[in-house]
Amino acid sequence: MDNKYMGIALELAKKGVGKVNPNPLVGAVIVKDGEIIGQGNHEYYGGPHAEVNAIKNSTGILEGSTIYITLEPCAHYGKTPPCVDLIIEKKFKKVVIGMLDPNPLVSGKSILKLKEKGIEVISGVKKEECIKLNEVFIKYIETKIPFVFLKTATSLDGKIATCTGESKWITSDESRRDGHLLRNKLSSIMVGVNTIIMDDPELTCRIENGRNPIRIVLDSTLRIPINAKVIENKEATTIIATTINSDKLKKEKLLSLGVKVIEVEEKDKKVNLRKLMIKLGELGIDSILIEGGGTLNFSALSEKIVDKVRFYIAPKILGGEKSKSSIGGEGFFKLSDAINLKDVTYEKLGNEIVVEGYLS
Amino acid sequence: MDNKYMGIALELAKKGVGKVNPNPLVGAVIVKDGEIIGQGNHEYYGGPHAEVNAIKNSTGILEGSTIYITLEPCAHYGKTPPCVDLIIEKKFKKVVIGMLDPNPLVSGKSILKLKEKGIEVISGVKKEECIKLNEVFIKYIETKIPFVFLKTATSLDGKIATCTGESKWITSDESRRDGHLLRNKLSSIMVGVNTIIMDDPELTCRIENGRNPIRIVLDSTLRIPINAKVIENKEATTIIATTINSDKLKKEKLLSLGVKVIEVEEKDKKVNLRKLMIKLGELGIDSILIEGGGTLNFSALSEKIVDKVRFYIAPKILGGEKSKSSIGGEGFFKLSDAINLKDVTYEKLGNEIVVEGYLS
Repeated sequence: MDNKYMGIALELAKKGVGKVNPNPLVGAVIVKDGEIIGQGNHEYYGGPHAEVNAIKNSTGILEGSTIYITLEPCAHYGKTPPCVDLIIEKKFKKVVIGMLDPNPLVSGKSILKLKEKGIEVISGVKKEECIKLNEVFIKYIETKIPFVFLKTATSLDGKIATCTGESKWITSDESRRDGHLLRNKLSSIMVGVNTIIMDDPELTCRIENGRNPIRIVLDSTLRIPINAKVIENKEATTIIATTINSDKLKKEKLLSLGVKVIEVEEKDKKVNLRKLMIKLGELGIDSILIEGGGTLNFSALSEKIVDKVRFYIAPKILGGEKSKSSIGGEGFFKLSDAINLKDVTYEKLGNEIVVEGYLS
Repeated sequence: MDNKYMGIALELAKKGVGKVNPNPLVGAVIVKDGEIIGQGNHEYYGGPHAEVNAIKNSTGILEGSTIYITLEPCAHYGKTPPCVDLIIEKKFKKVVIGMLDPNPLVSGKSILKLKEKGIEVISGVKKEECIKLNEVFIKYIETKIPFVFLKTATSLDGKIATCTGESKWITSDESRRDGHLLRNKLSSIMVGVNTIIMDDPELTCRIENGRNPIRIVLDSTLRIPINAKVIENKEATTIIATTINSDKLKKEKLLSLGVKVIEVEEKDKKVNLRKLMIKLGELGIDSILIEGGGTLNFSALSEKIVDKVRFYIAPKILGGEKSKSSIGGEGFFKLSDAINLKDVTYEKLGNEIVVEGYLS
């Protein structure tokens, strides 16, 4: 039964996707005598925690009941009082936890406190799923570096456009919609300036009730056209990431148009991606969706800033020695240097096969 | 029950893979009172038909029994007498057939003859599977052009080698073994001369009891080194396909080394692939496995000689704008000209995802 209720708590947690960053997704279910008497989730950034919402929404007497929570309850005063104290105060009999708090400073503290009060604690129920659900939060809380997710849509022969540059659309509606779900899920989206120059996309999230990601444009020499949609359209924040040596006048102009400009040290005359990640993390950006061309994709992979990739592969053949492929750049010289994805999953979606995996 | 026995007949038919070309794969099962009393298959080219073997191997009285055959029995005198007469002579009560004879001149003839003799006939049982099993035979009998199967092994980003040309091995043992099964299944293998120059492969079938395919090298200007393994190794026949304008002295030399040379008209200074297919068909070659580089693969696809493709995609990323990808050449200009595969299937094999589909 623990698995069943934790499964429900996980589904509740997912309701917060796109709304809680950089906080974790959490769900909670209160059960008494085999009946669910309360449920809740962390709904928005800074809002009440899942436990608080579940207690608030509960019908019936909490004393002696069991609470299922996907993440160890907090033990500290943050934006809200510690949930562990609330659980003790409400006299729960048992607490079932999906995963421990990933912050090493507090991990396990609440469990200890609950046990000291004589409350039964079971932890690690559906642990893998709870960890996967909060992979963004976990990396960000542990490193203060954003979780980077690289997404690309290709033909079976790895091309992202025909030899003449036509790319709309290689994949089916279903896969493109899934891509927009990712824009809702991750707090920012990153492209290279060439994508802006060639396609002039809005980079917004086109799904109902979707939340637009912060738009990040990598632009070493500030070549972005001042009438680009990511500048003119004010639906989302735009950050231009450039080098410390780029044109100051263009920078002033961009600032006057309401976009943010971040200057980072150079590496090989380009923006130093690893340093940029640190700066973006400092700005509270917990996650980045890279929707780059082949050059940016390779740079991100070879600089090892990518945590996860998702390839949408359409059963089409475009051919062309010079057609752009999903991962370009210089390339890895040896097979032993190539990236071997881990924990790879395959899924059929629309006409496509979707391959997802982790970098380490 | 018809499906069950036809399923057994199909499995029997597969025992002939690699041995019966350009004849069809056929299996037969004889059933009496719910018991299998005989089974057989077409074992080798020119050998007894499946029905003959099943009858020969049978235990019990055939009169009044049912025979399940994946393909309509033959009605003509070929290398063996007509099976339909044997079935009539043995007084079978019922004949269950998977698919009709694909030869339009004889298709349905045997069924008519059996019915005239008062034998019950059911046809079309597991028809799709029977057709797929004999896709090579069907195309070849109908067109006299070989069935062409293009196979390639790539990284997730469509590369067949790193930027320095390293390609051994992108895919896992399981996928490479599966590739050797294809070499056993199809009667010939085709590569471009660049593959010979760069990799000097033997192009033999390295599986137990495997049959080597005929090796076909596309070599417009006869650049093949005379000490190439496909020339020195005599385990299989080698055919060099060249243009009518290539060097006559080199041709004489090659002939003296025991290889066959086929001259075909030019198209864009290369071997005209469509004309070559006609010539290879005339030589009795019913099927070709293309294991080309990107250039040959694109030529074959754009010349529309390919019937089926199989991509082994490894969860690796090689990158490199200049790294060779599976389908190179000039490429299709527009997305509307790109190849959209049909009847696509996905399969997990070793570390790879295997995508298979048809061209029309």
